[in-house]
Amino acid sequence: MASKKKVSIAVIKRLPRYYRYLSDLLLMDITRISSKELSSRMGITASQIRQDLNCFGGFGQQGYGYNVELLYNEIANILGINDRFQTIILGAGNMGQALAHYGNFEKRGFKTIGLFDIDPKLIGKKINGLEVLDMETLEEFVSKNRVDIAMLTVPYEHAREAAERVARLGIKGLWNFSPMDLRLPYEMVIENVHLSDSLMVLGYKIKEKFE
Amino acid sequence: MASKKKVSIAVIKRLPRYYRYLSDLLLMDITRISSKELSSRMGITASQIRQDLNCFGGFGQQGYGYNVELLYNEIANILGINDRFQTIILGAGNMGQALAHYGNFEKRGFKTIGLFDIDPKLIGKKINGLEVLDMETLEEFVSKNRVDIAMLTVPYEHAREAAERVARLGIKGLWNFSPMDLRLPYEMVIENVHLSDSLMVLGYKIKEKFE
Repeated sequence: MASKKKVSIAVIKRLPRYYRYLSDLLLMDITRISSKELSSRMGITASQIRQDLNCFGGFGQQGYGYNVELLYNEIANILGINDRFQTIILGAGNMGQALAHYGNFEKRGFKTIGLFDIDPKLIGKKINGLEVLDMETLEEFVSKNRVDIAMLTVPYEHAREAAERVARLGIKGLWNFSPMDLRLPYEMVIENVHLSDSLMVLGYKIKEKFE
Repeated sequence: MASKKKVSIAVIKRLPRYYRYLSDLLLMDITRISSKELSSRMGITASQIRQDLNCFGGFGQQGYGYNVELLYNEIANILGINDRFQTIILGAGNMGQALAHYGNFEKRGFKTIGLFDIDPKLIGKKINGLEVLDMETLEEFVSKNRVDIAMLTVPYEHAREAAERVARLGIKGLWNFSPMDLRLPYEMVIENVHLSDSLMVLGYKIKEKFE
């Protein structure tokens, strides 16, 4: 495996995309691909692809291209997909339930093992095979199960408190869907998701293209 | 949304006045108005009104008149008063419902005006004040309402078909939540959202920090 130090976060952020395309190629039984071909599929320049993939060892061979499976496995390794993260979802409202149904996470190595809410109407309900548990039992649950990541979909006003509770439990990562950008004085890694950012990018592109 | 280039500066100069009158009509809950009626209110000839408003798309319909809100929004856009996009959500499952509840979009200028599904159990249900409409009525809805963006939350197997249907309706932007990276031979701008990409980056950061 290539040294992690060589790979910048900008490249890391592009890896999931390579991973998805390589996964599709494998499903089509395509065993090797040139940077040029990959470029036309992905809409990234071939030189960008060569530069990105060279960061972690350069799997391309002159006149051969990339070995799809090798590259796929290597990217999976770098991203930790083979490590299997265990996740919980805090907040079993619409977004929490949508995440609980999202099958792709498990394929990518993220297994949801718990779903929590404070609402008595939701507690006990089964969502995609997972029972909604009482938030009161969170500490007990985490003491009995390895939890690597908490997905946070609670309302804005509860977000900070819930995030701090997660951090105090020693959970390593927080995937935050609340509209609040969370920064906490803990070791925990936080990834804030801002859906409206992506929507605004779309709006801008529309204006630029059609006006 | 009309192209600014098509509208002459003479028409543009009259738009603030239309905007003020239409704003008053909205406050009075007047939803449609004929060019004749608008003419008598504004002291501009009806033919001038039709000519002006036809410059940017002609929202008047024979025997119906102008949809006041549509016209108001259109003028606001052209004038840059509020770059408001009108959106519809295709798929009223968990993710669609979560998007319908997401208050931030409207604050950013994206107003959801329609929510569609094929499931009879969902059709007719009210989600955050929006009634779930039958997908069968999509074409009719789009012919009567300006729709800039479709948010796509239908299952994987229906994604391509739904996206092509949206493109054929001339909707300019597609915000795609289905796990399928969509590329279509249409003018439509597509923004593919891959939630698991962000989760994979979180996984990488956790590995890097804690291992």
